[in-house]
Amino acid sequence: MEVLYGLHPVEEAIRSGARQLDHISVARERSGARGNSDARLEAVIALARAAKIRISLEPRDQLTRLAKTDAHQGILAFVRERQFLTVEDLLARPATQPGHPRFFLALDGLEDPHNLGALLRTADGTGVDGVLIPERRSAPITATVAKTSAGASEHVRIARVTNLVRALEQMKKAHVWVVGLDERGTPDYTDYDFSSDTVLVLGREGAGLHDLVKKTCDHLLRIPMAGQVSSLNVSVAGAVVMYEALRQRRVPSVQQKTAQASKRTKERKGLGS
Amino acid sequence: MEVLYGLHPVEEAIRSGARQLDHISVARERSGARGNSDARLEAVIALARAAKIRISLEPRDQLTRLAKTDAHQGILAFVRERQFLTVEDLLARPATQPGHPRFFLALDGLEDPHNLGALLRTADGTGVDGVLIPERRSAPITATVAKTSAGASEHVRIARVTNLVRALEQMKKAHVWVVGLDERGTPDYTDYDFSSDTVLVLGREGAGLHDLVKKTCDHLLRIPMAGQVSSLNVSVAGAVVMYEALRQRRVPSVQQKTAQASKRTKERKGLGS
Repeated sequence: MEVLYGLHPVEEAIRSGARQLDHISVARERSGARGNSDARLEAVIALARAAKIRISLEPRDQLTRLAKTDAHQGILAFVRERQFLTVEDLLARPATQPGHPRFFLALDGLEDPHNLGALLRTADGTGVDGVLIPERRSAPITATVAKTSAGASEHVRIARVTNLVRALEQMKKAHVWVVGLDERGTPDYTDYDFSSDTVLVLGREGAGLHDLVKKTCDHLLRIPMAGQVSSLNVSVAGAVVMYEALRQRRVPSVQQKTAQASKRTKERKGLGS
Repeated sequence: MEVLYGLHPVEEAIRSGARQLDHISVARERSGARGNSDARLEAVIALARAAKIRISLEPRDQLTRLAKTDAHQGILAFVRERQFLTVEDLLARPATQPGHPRFFLALDGLEDPHNLGALLRTADGTGVDGVLIPERRSAPITATVAKTSAGASEHVRIARVTNLVRALEQMKKAHVWVVGLDERGTPDYTDYDFSSDTVLVLGREGAGLHDLVKKTCDHLLRIPMAGQVSSLNVSVAGAVVMYEALRQRRVPSVQQKTAQASKRTKERKGLGS
């Protein structure tokens, strides 16, 4: 059993229906601190009642002990451990947005739960078809991640993989382009054509992509930096590229597509299958 | 005197030259924990030596006491308090990128120093011409902000204003479009034409823009949300729009410009000056 805390994570856990909820614990005392937080709490309680989930009232201190933080906003959910998907599961599904190319995200050893949460929130926001996370040397999907993601972690399809390079090779075989983000990459991300199935690979905070992962990428993209500082926060960088990909997928430029299609068919040769 | 901590903030404070540095304190003991952090520390020390800044060696514990955090990476800088600019200062300068329209950022009551730091880092990355921050009810530019911004806060031009609405009105008079980001806004940010001088206004975490600020905006833009969660983190949302504006400024679409120019001339009527 795991504990989720906070209004958004508990609400999204109920709404997504992806996990079995045992019960919900609510603070007996209302905060009264902020005008609308009590109203939001009541709304989540109503949602839980409608879903026939057991609700227990408990002292606020008890919630803090169980959540191991006081950032619980007066509500906890006790849920079954998450069942992760496999790469095959991700590939088996057609695109979330019918008629559009698929877009996946792969995280190569992110260690900060806040970055992971922020990326899952943006992945949900851009309708990403699935996220690949390595089993080891990577932040686990904790309650902190759920909180930072505003509950999006409960909705996004996540595959846990033992070997990221092997998983990316599997995606290549399924005709998904493997595209890494790298400070020294070319071209700029805005010059890349996201109109084919793509998996975007993001590297570690500071150190970037592992060498082997970098070698597995079909392309390395760069985000232009116009100022003095040399890089963006990884959750920001990922968001910028995910939204550019969404922009391109929503408004397919026919001109761009035909121009790049022939170029890419050539490039693809020699990559094997 | 203020204290900055961490490799990036200290390095950028030296490089920017915007503040008078009194001296730098370096941990006597090297961390040895990570392979390249000692090398980076030596590089910053060399930079300080070249700039003829006094360097003192101190016990690591002493640095932690002075920085009030152990996230100092073995280096502190003691700097004169920051001199903020005025709206007039921001408007007096031509565009950072010659021949391109200007782009400003205004923050309407952001309270989280990590969001503020992340936004300043992206503002630097996209070559923003200046940032407006209200004096009150807004996170101050602390050492935490400098750290989160990877030192970008030392480079970005920042104006502190007593009244944000009045400052935005001033920008309008200088022919800068005032554009807010709002969940219920139209059009989508990708359909907006950033080829004129623009100030992007971001609202508070959770509550968004203040009503009066919202009324001051010429346009309210929306970021499309393709998933289940209704909004993005503000630092992510700001980054997505800042990079879209940079993309448009770098590759001006002639077609789009002429099409929207006539439309906007009409809309502008009746807004007064």
